[in-house]
Amino acid sequence: MKLPGQEEFEAPSASENVPAGQLDISLSTGPSPEGPSDTGSRELGVPKDPLLFIQLNELLGWPQALEWRETGSSSWSLLLDLGVMPPITPPTPFPHRWVLFEEKLEMGAGRWSAPHVPTLVLPSLQKLRSLLAKGLILLDCPAQSLLELIEQVTRVESLSPELRGQLQALLLQRPQHYIQTTGTRRWWGSAHPRETSLDEKEQHQNPLRKKLPPGTEAGAVLAGELGFLSQPLGAFVRLRDPVVLGTLTEVPLPSRFFCLLLGPPVLGRGYHELGRAAAVLLSDLQFQRSARRVSNVHDLLTALDAFLKEATVLPPGRWDLTARIPPPKYLPSQHKRPLSQLRKVKDPSAPQGAPAEDRRGHGPPPPNPELLRTGRLFGGLVQDVRRKALWYPSDFLDALHPQCFSAILYIYLATVTNAITFGGLLGDATDGAQGVLENFLGTAVAGAAFCLLAGQPLTILSSTGPVLVFERLLFSFSRDYGLDYLPFRLWVGIWVSTFCLVLVATEASVLVRYFTRFTEEGFCALISLIFIYDAVGKMLSLAHAYPIQRPGPGLAGSIAYGCLCEFPGPGGNESQWTKTRLKDTDNILSMDLGLVNASLLPPSECAQLGGHPRGPSCHTVPDIAFFSLLLFLISFLFAVALKHIKTSRFFPSVVRKVLGDFNSVLAILLGCGLDAFLGLATPKLMVPREFKPTLSGRNWLVSPFGANPWWLSLAAALPALLLSILIFMDQQITAVILNRTEYQLQKGAGFHLDLFCVAMLILLTSALGLPWYVSATVISLAHMDSLRRESKACAPGEHPPFLGIREQRLTGLVVFILTGVSIFLAPILKFIPMPVLYGIFLYMGVAALSSIQFTKRVQLLLMPAKHQPDLLLLRHVPLSRVHLFTAIQLACLGLLWTIKSTPAAIIFPLMLLGLVGVRKALEWIFSPQELLWLDQLMPEGERSIPEKGLEPEHSLSGSDSEDSDLMYQPKAPEINISVN
Amino acid sequence: MKLPGQEEFEAPSASENVPAGQLDISLSTGPSPEGPSDTGSRELGVPKDPLLFIQLNELLGWPQALEWRETGSSSWSLLLDLGVMPPITPPTPFPHRWVLFEEKLEMGAGRWSAPHVPTLVLPSLQKLRSLLAKGLILLDCPAQSLLELIEQVTRVESLSPELRGQLQALLLQRPQHYIQTTGTRRWWGSAHPRETSLDEKEQHQNPLRKKLPPGTEAGAVLAGELGFLSQPLGAFVRLRDPVVLGTLTEVPLPSRFFCLLLGPPVLGRGYHELGRAAAVLLSDLQFQRSARRVSNVHDLLTALDAFLKEATVLPPGRWDLTARIPPPKYLPSQHKRPLSQLRKVKDPSAPQGAPAEDRRGHGPPPPNPELLRTGRLFGGLVQDVRRKALWYPSDFLDALHPQCFSAILYIYLATVTNAITFGGLLGDATDGAQGVLENFLGTAVAGAAFCLLAGQPLTILSSTGPVLVFERLLFSFSRDYGLDYLPFRLWVGIWVSTFCLVLVATEASVLVRYFTRFTEEGFCALISLIFIYDAVGKMLSLAHAYPIQRPGPGLAGSIAYGCLCEFPGPGGNESQWTKTRLKDTDNILSMDLGLVNASLLPPSECAQLGGHPRGPSCHTVPDIAFFSLLLFLISFLFAVALKHIKTSRFFPSVVRKVLGDFNSVLAILLGCGLDAFLGLATPKLMVPREFKPTLSGRNWLVSPFGANPWWLSLAAALPALLLSILIFMDQQITAVILNRTEYQLQKGAGFHLDLFCVAMLILLTSALGLPWYVSATVISLAHMDSLRRESKACAPGEHPPFLGIREQRLTGLVVFILTGVSIFLAPILKFIPMPVLYGIFLYMGVAALSSIQFTKRVQLLLMPAKHQPDLLLLRHVPLSRVHLFTAIQLACLGLLWTIKSTPAAIIFPLMLLGLVGVRKALEWIFSPQELLWLDQLMPEGERSIPEKGLEPEHSLSGSDSEDSDLMYQPKAPEINISVN
Repeated sequence: MKLPGQEEFEAPSASENVPAGQLDISLSTGPSPEGPSDTGSRELGVPKDPLLFIQLNELLGWPQALEWRETGSSSWSLLLDLGVMPPITPPTPFPHRWVLFEEKLEMGAGRWSAPHVPTLVLPSLQKLRSLLAKGLILLDCPAQSLLELIEQVTRVESLSPELRGQLQALLLQRPQHYIQTTGTRRWWGSAHPRETSLDEKEQHQNPLRKKLPPGTEAGAVLAGELGFLSQPLGAFVRLRDPVVLGTLTEVPLPSRFFCLLLGPPVLGRGYHELGRAAAVLLSDLQFQRSARRVSNVHDLLTALDAFLKEATVLPPGRWDLTARIPPPKYLPSQHKRPLSQLRKVKDPSAPQGAPAEDRRGHGPPPPNPELLRTGRLFGGLVQDVRRKALWYPSDFLDALHPQCFSAILYIYLATVTNAITFGGLLGDATDGAQGVLENFLGTAVAGAAFCLLAGQPLTILSSTGPVLVFERLLFSFSRDYGLDYLPFRLWVGIWVSTFCLVLVATEASVLVRYFTRFTEEGFCALISLIFIYDAVGKMLSLAHAYPIQRPGPGLAGSIAYGCLCEFPGPGGNESQWTKTRLKDTDNILSMDLGLVNASLLPPSECAQLGGHPRGPSCHTVPDIAFFSLLLFLISFLFAVALKHIKTSRFFPSVVRKVLGDFNSVLAILLGCGLDAFLGLATPKLMVPREFKPTLSGRNWLVSPFGANPWWLSLAAALPALLLSILIFMDQQITAVILNRTEYQLQKGAGFHLDLFCVAMLILLTSALGLPWYVSATVISLAHMDSLRRESKACAPGEHPPFLGIREQRLTGLVVFILTGVSIFLAPILKFIPMPVLYGIFLYMGVAALSSIQFTKRVQLLLMPAKHQPDLLLLRHVPLSRVHLFTAIQLACLGLLWTIKSTPAAIIFPLMLLGLVGVRKALEWIFSPQELLWLDQLMPEGERSIPEKGLEPEHSLSGSDSEDSDLMYQPKAPEINISVN
Repeated sequence: MKLPGQEEFEAPSASENVPAGQLDISLSTGPSPEGPSDTGSRELGVPKDPLLFIQLNELLGWPQALEWRETGSSSWSLLLDLGVMPPITPPTPFPHRWVLFEEKLEMGAGRWSAPHVPTLVLPSLQKLRSLLAKGLILLDCPAQSLLELIEQVTRVESLSPELRGQLQALLLQRPQHYIQTTGTRRWWGSAHPRETSLDEKEQHQNPLRKKLPPGTEAGAVLAGELGFLSQPLGAFVRLRDPVVLGTLTEVPLPSRFFCLLLGPPVLGRGYHELGRAAAVLLSDLQFQRSARRVSNVHDLLTALDAFLKEATVLPPGRWDLTARIPPPKYLPSQHKRPLSQLRKVKDPSAPQGAPAEDRRGHGPPPPNPELLRTGRLFGGLVQDVRRKALWYPSDFLDALHPQCFSAILYIYLATVTNAITFGGLLGDATDGAQGVLENFLGTAVAGAAFCLLAGQPLTILSSTGPVLVFERLLFSFSRDYGLDYLPFRLWVGIWVSTFCLVLVATEASVLVRYFTRFTEEGFCALISLIFIYDAVGKMLSLAHAYPIQRPGPGLAGSIAYGCLCEFPGPGGNESQWTKTRLKDTDNILSMDLGLVNASLLPPSECAQLGGHPRGPSCHTVPDIAFFSLLLFLISFLFAVALKHIKTSRFFPSVVRKVLGDFNSVLAILLGCGLDAFLGLATPKLMVPREFKPTLSGRNWLVSPFGANPWWLSLAAALPALLLSILIFMDQQITAVILNRTEYQLQKGAGFHLDLFCVAMLILLTSALGLPWYVSATVISLAHMDSLRRESKACAPGEHPPFLGIREQRLTGLVVFILTGVSIFLAPILKFIPMPVLYGIFLYMGVAALSSIQFTKRVQLLLMPAKHQPDLLLLRHVPLSRVHLFTAIQLACLGLLWTIKSTPAAIIFPLMLLGLVGVRKALEWIFSPQELLWLDQLMPEGERSIPEKGLEPEHSLSGSDSEDSDLMYQPKAPEINISVN
């Protein structure tokens, strides 16, 4: 007994019959590389096979064929007899539909199920094969209508003329479809879906139609058990010219395939499963491709065998049959399908492009072409400018799309939130040398300039976390040594610009390849921890500023508190006292104790009036400490909760997106609302009352020396060196992330140009006493994400294909202009309580920390091996080695933290750079394979391992072949670095 | 071209060759119904087939066979040549193992994967079939050792003598196993697992051994490619007497099956997959059963065909091949396997027992035999006493098991937490008429008595939510009318006992069947909402008691506050003043303002000394309101978080269990610790300083009339009627839940006896002025859960089989004795801040509310249809009907809440009973099918629908057959009713 496909077990392949030139990878939806022409039509009109919509109609009791229901295999009649349900028309066609995945109409619930992976039983496929082998195969049938088609199909010898007539009449019946109409909900009445005879108008209104791309063809499968048939009747028709077959399918699509599977009644649900098998078969892309091209029955069966050969078998009794397998996050790529077919692929773009593009993240980082050293002074910069200049006009024309408006709103709010939070904290940390106003102004100026001139126009500049940390250290350093901060800072800025220029000139950006994930994560973790530590520390310092008064020990829990305003002598200045009393009658009354020389005036007023505040509570303000703590916790928890809503099941996706994206803004608003409602004197954001620097008495332009000695301008080179390292690392790591291949940027990167712009802007902002700016990872990624171009036509269960990003300069420019305009909103910012900002600060730290893989590995330390998630990493690296790697990272972090806590804290950028060295040393401890999984490989031209040695996973062990699919999956953009 | 199983497509079945009498349902692990004999051995010694452990060894380069590595198909040699990795011994055997699910050794990571559902490719199964068809089949082979076996297996014509020798030498090689040793972790050195030659000692120490029940047999599959073979070599051996085949398998089990699949090298990984196919086949219980019994090759192949026929096929390219399908929560029951086999099942217990037992929850509630009406006065009670008396001795003997100790600790802590929380709240609500001390005493007395005498000894009594709510209403009613509460309450208690006695006499408990989920959920939701409302209300009232002082409007944010103690006249009682000063020097000093007639003494002290407190803040205590709010939120959130830890991936399961189970205790401790640390004067739990009632001036025994008029003892019958309804509903709903079939209780229920005990205890506690007690659902379920008997032997990926519950009276008794002893701990309870208890109260309300299906359906209202979970309910009932049902429930709840908020609040028990009527009326709106999914059916003897009409899901529509499996799954115990 021979099985199909068995002969070919040793030597592929079954589909060699398929004309070679016609094979292509129709699933590859990447844009063609001819440039960023901004149309939605790229996915159309290419020489791909059209998508196929498949519908199964089951002949299970059409109204005129009541005799079928009497066969007993249908249970509807039983129910009708029992009177349990109102006698309703039995459903027909039996509703299943497929595009990529199966959808099933839940008859009772009257709705289409979620798309799921179809499961079949093997016998139905085998039965289908034999039915097709014996049945009628019409390839390139010229029928122009359903009538013609049915006449051709029923022209079978085995049918007597009257049977044929009966069958034709049956097949020409107008089927009854269930069309899910949106908007109308019936709360009363029949519990069953509307099943009316479909007129063509309704067919055209089917919402499914919008989801299918133009050009989609239909395949109709008709299956059923007919009592008057004596033997099975199978027919497979490929129409030469697809035509709309009346209302046979619920969407008015031209049908390409038609499959008829009829037979005498059998036990069980044989023909239903047979029909499903045919439909699932047709929904397979490989089979579709073959079925469109085969010229005889044998080839069709060979294609079916190829399908069978690649099908996955789950043993019976080992899994939950009722569970529907949800569509995988990524469709397995077609290059996993038989090699023989792939080798023949003629399409030049897909097969070479795809692997190189997708391997990213596991193999050694593919060097950006922009990061190849030219060897000339400023060679990289010149190249960047040249490349970017070509795109400059399109950078404005490409912005003419409504999507850009929502992107502007989103990024504007995010930028303003950032400006407020970081500005507030900078003001806090530098005693007003910086402030919210400075940050608004600086963000607007620097951001707009960068958008206009830089290489990567989607980048959003921000006074990011690392720079904030450094500035705080620099400020306390200069305060400790009694320096005039802003002039000193100006010189630091001048030196930083100089150093950065040198880095641009020497094309140092190519070194960015040495920053592996190990470095990135160390960088991010340290900054995040500083954020968290600072946020909590600020809150504790508030508790010191507003101490809590505890009850004295001797008084059984009762508290003695209060503050009395005492006037100098018993006969004090009573005339002045009376005057005050007249002014603020209400308040003074309550403070009038009928005493000669004392009042309950608050301490500040008391001192103004010449009195002395006395009492245990003169220096405490009640309730502030705990209320601040509450505000802090509430804003933090609210921001976290809103972010979670984004991935929850609740609310329509638009609402979820808004709540999730604007979580910080909403959390700040909530905090402000609570604070305003209770009206307590919580510490608020410092904002100058007019448009002038926060630090009173300074001009916008910083004087070059101030009170500092002249040599300080030279000594500033030392901290500037440290800051340069920090800025270089932060800027370039961000740039690498933004230029990852999965974003499919068309206009190229500008590493050198960007660094040059940053350097110039540092010079400018230093001179004006504004914060320093570099590219912010998180917010720039959000910017790109809000400008994604996605195909709207996607099959149910499929993720919308990503078509690229609207690369242009206008959205960023408008955002920063709006930010500049917002300076006039500054007066209302003084209502923001500081604890709320600390809460947001804490949220940012926690969010950044939890986004890195390092955190996930730290969590593994706490998990018993049994409960660990099935990470690819853990499939390939022993747990002890994973833990060792994590422990080394923790040790590095501990060391960095220790340095940060000593007086030498300011040298922490140097130590961050030291992580690169540590990473290099790890090569002595870990094998390249382990490092490939735990980190990524460092570039090393001198190593003698051939390229294939660095991709060990295909060859390391045959058993791991199943993993290779994950490597080829386009990786979702990951926000895993730096702190906004 | 014919396919296997194709001929049998129309008419089952392939396994008719299997001797009919030998088939049984070996997966059904329910205990045999002969009684609660407490041994762990019930799962052994039954006439079931032993479990089979299957291991695949792959001949992929044993050390002495280096020539195979040169075939090129192995990539190890390539890697070795490249020098990428240290030259290590290639792995052998190729590590896969099966019991129920597949485990795979992750070579790189050196650990066994999590158990998962194996997936195969179809060609490997087909190839296996043809290899077996042509190969050597030895059934009941008498070999006694590996040597004998191999000699027999290699006695094939196609092998030349020298080839045979070579092969035998190869097969006798001692394979190298990877045994996961626990405890030892290597942090340095080779990245690869220890692969040493296995000695038998190690084989015996394999931790896997403990997981396999005694009697487990092994099946060994050897597969590989041998360069010197010219044609495939297949052998399948069933040993007559299972013997341990040396170290062939990693666990020293006697081998029953041996399968050899060798052949010349082929492209791809043919023999590896072939070996996996054989192993998966052997791991199928149906195939195993057949393979143990077949007598010839043909039957073996038929069994293989039966396997193929039932296998599920996933189409290629439609799901993520790298994703491992986790073991289903419940194994599909074997009755889904071909009907032909089931019909022949001889085992009388399993097939009839299983469906009746498992259908629960979907079909109409199977009436408990204890709930059949006898028709005699007290007939049910007499029956209960008779039945229970038989078990009485064993109720103490069965408690002799270490598991009972941990159950006692857990339930004791939970009971004490409950006693504190509810006692504190009762004291709060009744102005001390009840209190913590009363609740401790009452719980101990009533609980112990119930454990000794009631029908359901595992039940834990508690002053539950509904009774607490009623008592609060009763108290405010009696206060409003100036009644003497405790005597009035005594009469209510007397009447309640009387009414309950009447209910017992008339066997009213049989009416409990009319309480469907609709009633239960309405009951639970109302009480939960009252909990939540009360907890938040209590917190807000705290804010009123400790008001926050806001800054005056005219003083620019500065606060005038303080309180001055003023003495009557300018020349006040100075002598007394001086005396006080001497007493509390420290405190008085700080209050001495050098004033003639004023001091900063706190208000209470001031009043004692004859002064008048004056000032705006004399009636506020700062910080208390916000600190209380913080304590409230922290204890609530902490309890929630700890509960979540129980289902998280972190920490070993013991730690998770302790944290999750003791979450309330830990949250209270945390709150107390925070409170003690800050030492603020938060409101604390009221506890009398000695052992006497909380209400000062009363005796333990309540006087029968007190200050009330005599007729009040008659009028008390009215509220008593309401309370009787409440107690009846609460007690009986709980009893039904505790007696659900899935708990497999052996000693029967005691509905009537329990109600009788409750009635008597209400009489007792009313006389003593203690709280009223009924059975508490949540804590009783926890009690039963902590006494589960589970089989320790379970295959990887399988859930431990549930063997029953240790039904006895001792654990409960000890818990309540300990609770009684804990009265002496009462003095330390006064350190518990009330806000913490309110937080726990809120947690209880939220936890109860979120456990009911109603809440899940309310959530559906907020979810777009696309994101709704794939609930069975939604597959069968139209969404609009689900929403309608939810809306009706919401309306009922709104009505109940409205009544609860009016002066007529006290009649709410009557309204709860009204839910039964509403549910009855729903039958006019919803079809029985819909009600079956949304609720459950009410008993109705007069209905004429035959029984099968009430199980519509099998017959409703053929397409829904896939759901029937879910109906047969043992449902996990659900905590879905009432509030602790």
